[in-house]
Amino acid sequence: MSDIAPLRQHQLQRCIQKLGLPSATTLNWHRLDLALTHVSADPVHNYEQLELLGDAVLRLAATECLQDHLPTATVGELSSLRAILTSDRTLAEISEQLGLDQYLLVSETVKADQLGRPARLADALEAVLAALYLETQNLHLIRSWLDPQLKRRANKLLRDPAQQNHKARLQELTQAHVKALPDYQTQEQRPVDGDPQRFRSQVWFKQTCWGTGYGPTKKQAEQAAAAAAFQPLQEFLGAG
Amino acid sequence: MSDIAPLRQHQLQRCIQKLGLPSATTLNWHRLDLALTHVSADPVHNYEQLELLGDAVLRLAATECLQDHLPTATVGELSSLRAILTSDRTLAEISEQLGLDQYLLVSETVKADQLGRPARLADALEAVLAALYLETQNLHLIRSWLDPQLKRRANKLLRDPAQQNHKARLQELTQAHVKALPDYQTQEQRPVDGDPQRFRSQVWFKQTCWGTGYGPTKKQAEQAAAAAAFQPLQEFLGAG
Repeated sequence: MSDIAPLRQHQLQRCIQKLGLPSATTLNWHRLDLALTHVSADPVHNYEQLELLGDAVLRLAATECLQDHLPTATVGELSSLRAILTSDRTLAEISEQLGLDQYLLVSETVKADQLGRPARLADALEAVLAALYLETQNLHLIRSWLDPQLKRRANKLLRDPAQQNHKARLQELTQAHVKALPDYQTQEQRPVDGDPQRFRSQVWFKQTCWGTGYGPTKKQAEQAAAAAAFQPLQEFLGAG
Repeated sequence: MSDIAPLRQHQLQRCIQKLGLPSATTLNWHRLDLALTHVSADPVHNYEQLELLGDAVLRLAATECLQDHLPTATVGELSSLRAILTSDRTLAEISEQLGLDQYLLVSETVKADQLGRPARLADALEAVLAALYLETQNLHLIRSWLDPQLKRRANKLLRDPAQQNHKARLQELTQAHVKALPDYQTQEQRPVDGDPQRFRSQVWFKQTCWGTGYGPTKKQAEQAAAAAAFQPLQEFLGAG
């Protein structure tokens, strides 16, 4: 691989300072460059492989953060919060807040596609997480800046019962667009008390299944399914 | 927390030797004890919280292992392999092979439920992964024994085109039970060349959506959806 242009390296250094990492942090700048290169800017060397790893890194970081921050929460509550905090929607928000778009290399044509912007920003954030993970093979360079972002959002979700009530939120979403309600199909799949996968719930709307959730109670499985369905259904209704 | 009974500790030491870890490894034995305690054996101190973390640890370990082992594979191929390697079915197989059931504390009633056995063994393996992860905050105690398990299965999947062809496999499964075929509903959701989420596919069978998959091509999205649908549909048809 060729050397990184001084201007790009300077840009990447500013980017990690934005995350709150020490300016003296030395990184594999090639990898961070990849993490911030969309496929439209380079069809071969881009963030796709890092994004695959980053999705797993994020899931791990979010679980650790939530379990540390909310030691008395149930597995069902944590799992539902994790689903929201690792959604493209949350990632895009964090990415916007960190100004990641300034550092993301994208072709002009793709840049003009504003609808795809949240997904690109979410993907790039995951790729950056992977690049930072690979530096130390642990979450050392990640949790210091990601935890506050996740905790703030978790606290907000916990404070606001309407936000927590995913079924109510999903109902509002669908009713704002069409006079129809989502339908829940919930089955007991393992009759073991307290089993986090005891119930399985699917959210149906317009002959399509939009999300699946599990929980130790029927109610928790439906809330988890509603949480999973919210974003895809929002995108569908927004685009429709 | 009370001390661990010497007999149980001896049992847990044998368990980690089975994984191939040095017999002198010192661990937080309480945590490993938790990881191998089903909710039916202790409604409060059991593996549920560890399982939540372990699911993320496993996903990370599997991604790293696959990316190291198959450096030329596409993101779509890796993602489809990862879905199979992190499925309950694969985990239960690995768990059986390691003889984890010998160390898992379960009530007599639940032990009699043979249908639930694979899920319990899969969950316990995830919890053990979390316990080992927390020891070092990285994958140091995991990849040495998990990688060979995952690589062997990945190689087998890659050698056997029938296994790789998830759509064909799913078709065989459904036709063995009823004379009906699964239906694929596939949509282009982001018109970006090479985007790993360009296409989204859902597998439908008997008015139910059994799996969702993404891919840079229609074919890859459908294969990923078929891979995701296989296990739940197998369980459903097996139980039905």
